[in-house]
Amino acid sequence: MPAHLEDAPPTFDDVLGAARQIAGAAHRTPVVTSRTIDDRVGARLFFKCENLQRAGAFKFRGAYNALSRLSADQRRRGVVTFSSGNHAQAIALAGQLLDVPRVIVMPADAPAVKIAATRGYGGEVVLYDRAREDREEIGRRLGQERGLAVIPPYNHPHIIAGQGTAALELFEETGALDHLFAPCGGGGLLAGSSLSAAAASPGCRVVGVEPAAGDDAARSFRTRTLQTVSNPQTVADGARTPSLGSLTFPIVLQHASDIVSVEDPPLLRTMFHLWERLKLVVEPTGALGAAAAVERVVDVRGARVGIILSGGNVELAQIPAWLEISARARHTGQPV
Amino acid sequence: MPAHLEDAPPTFDDVLGAARQIAGAAHRTPVVTSRTIDDRVGARLFFKCENLQRAGAFKFRGAYNALSRLSADQRRRGVVTFSSGNHAQAIALAGQLLDVPRVIVMPADAPAVKIAATRGYGGEVVLYDRAREDREEIGRRLGQERGLAVIPPYNHPHIIAGQGTAALELFEETGALDHLFAPCGGGGLLAGSSLSAAAASPGCRVVGVEPAAGDDAARSFRTRTLQTVSNPQTVADGARTPSLGSLTFPIVLQHASDIVSVEDPPLLRTMFHLWERLKLVVEPTGALGAAAAVERVVDVRGARVGIILSGGNVELAQIPAWLEISARARHTGQPV
Repeated sequence: MPAHLEDAPPTFDDVLGAARQIAGAAHRTPVVTSRTIDDRVGARLFFKCENLQRAGAFKFRGAYNALSRLSADQRRRGVVTFSSGNHAQAIALAGQLLDVPRVIVMPADAPAVKIAATRGYGGEVVLYDRAREDREEIGRRLGQERGLAVIPPYNHPHIIAGQGTAALELFEETGALDHLFAPCGGGGLLAGSSLSAAAASPGCRVVGVEPAAGDDAARSFRTRTLQTVSNPQTVADGARTPSLGSLTFPIVLQHASDIVSVEDPPLLRTMFHLWERLKLVVEPTGALGAAAAVERVVDVRGARVGIILSGGNVELAQIPAWLEISARARHTGQPV
Repeated sequence: MPAHLEDAPPTFDDVLGAARQIAGAAHRTPVVTSRTIDDRVGARLFFKCENLQRAGAFKFRGAYNALSRLSADQRRRGVVTFSSGNHAQAIALAGQLLDVPRVIVMPADAPAVKIAATRGYGGEVVLYDRAREDREEIGRRLGQERGLAVIPPYNHPHIIAGQGTAALELFEETGALDHLFAPCGGGGLLAGSSLSAAAASPGCRVVGVEPAAGDDAARSFRTRTLQTVSNPQTVADGARTPSLGSLTFPIVLQHASDIVSVEDPPLLRTMFHLWERLKLVVEPTGALGAAAAVERVVDVRGARVGIILSGGNVELAQIPAWLEISARARHTGQPV
């Protein structure tokens, strides 16, 4: 995509281009299955393990795609971004690999493990107060002051195209699917996944999954008008974004089939179920897609179902509180 | 191995035979690496992920090997075994696949998730009091009363040969290694791994790792006389076995290089470190080998190191207590 088209919505061709761009840098993550979970759900579930992606989340795909396309001059000056966590680590690591200076604006209450990891990858971290400050404004100001390119966490064509490569790899491995579930915060993963599904598995129902406390995207999808939410309280810290973006929303409207939401207790119950059965550490946000299928928010019985486990960066100290919240989950009733 | 040689010590040929016997039934588990852990340890670590084995531990290898070699008559009558957990699940699942009735004698205080999983695989569970009863005696009595073949958890040539296939696969993937770390309870995995190393990677130092509270094998190895321990208190519940066995001990004496031990706090710190970095759920016993390398119990700097992550069956309710114990770990000092 030429630089002058940087605000043009990405297409499936851009996803294919991103796949070539990140090959060798990003992991081609495994797709795993579980007989036990399949029996419980009554469907065939394929889990795409982006928790095993570099820096622990799918975000590395978009970050590396975006940074590797900067001009030599932009690379030298560096980039700035704002993120609640995984995009921050992804930009920090991609910049380290590509030798691009990077400033990351992070909320002061982001998980300590994510802030530490971002610094560990050599990113300069600027903290802000989520309740009183606007991260995009801080990012833009730093960009102007220091001549840094702003790489937002989702509303950017290279980011969206990069995130779409996870679903592309999944379809390459599984063939056509009936459903594809992806967590939804700002919609970068959902938009990219939708582009891949529309081309690689036409007819596949692509469903975005949000935490119930931050169901702005579900409301936006239903009303076809962008809705916002302010600092929702949820354990799914990767989906606390205020709204879909100007680039992601139209793609989601055109290609996604639905956006649903999950309460925190069943979300955590599903997350721990994945830990127990798959032996994989998945973070709460990363389990949103699985929760929609396992907790029967969507009826997938008899279907072939793709689920993107989007990340695995957990703060272990949170686990005791998560176990308590998980125990509050109501018993799952009969299949819908 | 003909039935009349059932008490003969297994050889590397038996490991090769077991590999053929379990092919298609057992998973060929992945070998994973972590740049971050390598940098921290100053070595190249290869983790063999037996936590991703069927029924969640390497034990399925030996169990399937043993049950698949029963005579038609023995298969019809069934088997009995005694186990603190993972061997129980392995026999339960292998018997389900091979249509062999199986009775499992388990300690009443075994992790609830392991008892439930054993029953879930269709095993008949008989509970006993670890402090007052002898599990082998209960097993032998049930065997006589019901005509069941006794399949002990480690002291059996088919079991040892089966467990050796994990290290065999590891060497096939990595080539020669300088060190191989394996958890040590009754010594089935360590003996089998030693046979594989001696043949597939001559000169590789095979090191068994025990919990410090149950360091009978280390003492046995040092004194070349079988030592025992009684109900050691440790989070490594898979290594609470009273001693090495009459078949495993001589193999370990002949082929292993050392047996070392790890205290519970650094063991749990390593386990959680694996969760965070590899995004893999490993149980405390399963992290013993990794702890010996990461906590510098053995100096492995500059070496190519194989580590068997032997299992991933955790009881989530234990995590808060484990976090507290882990926090008691002393700071790791300078490299040894």
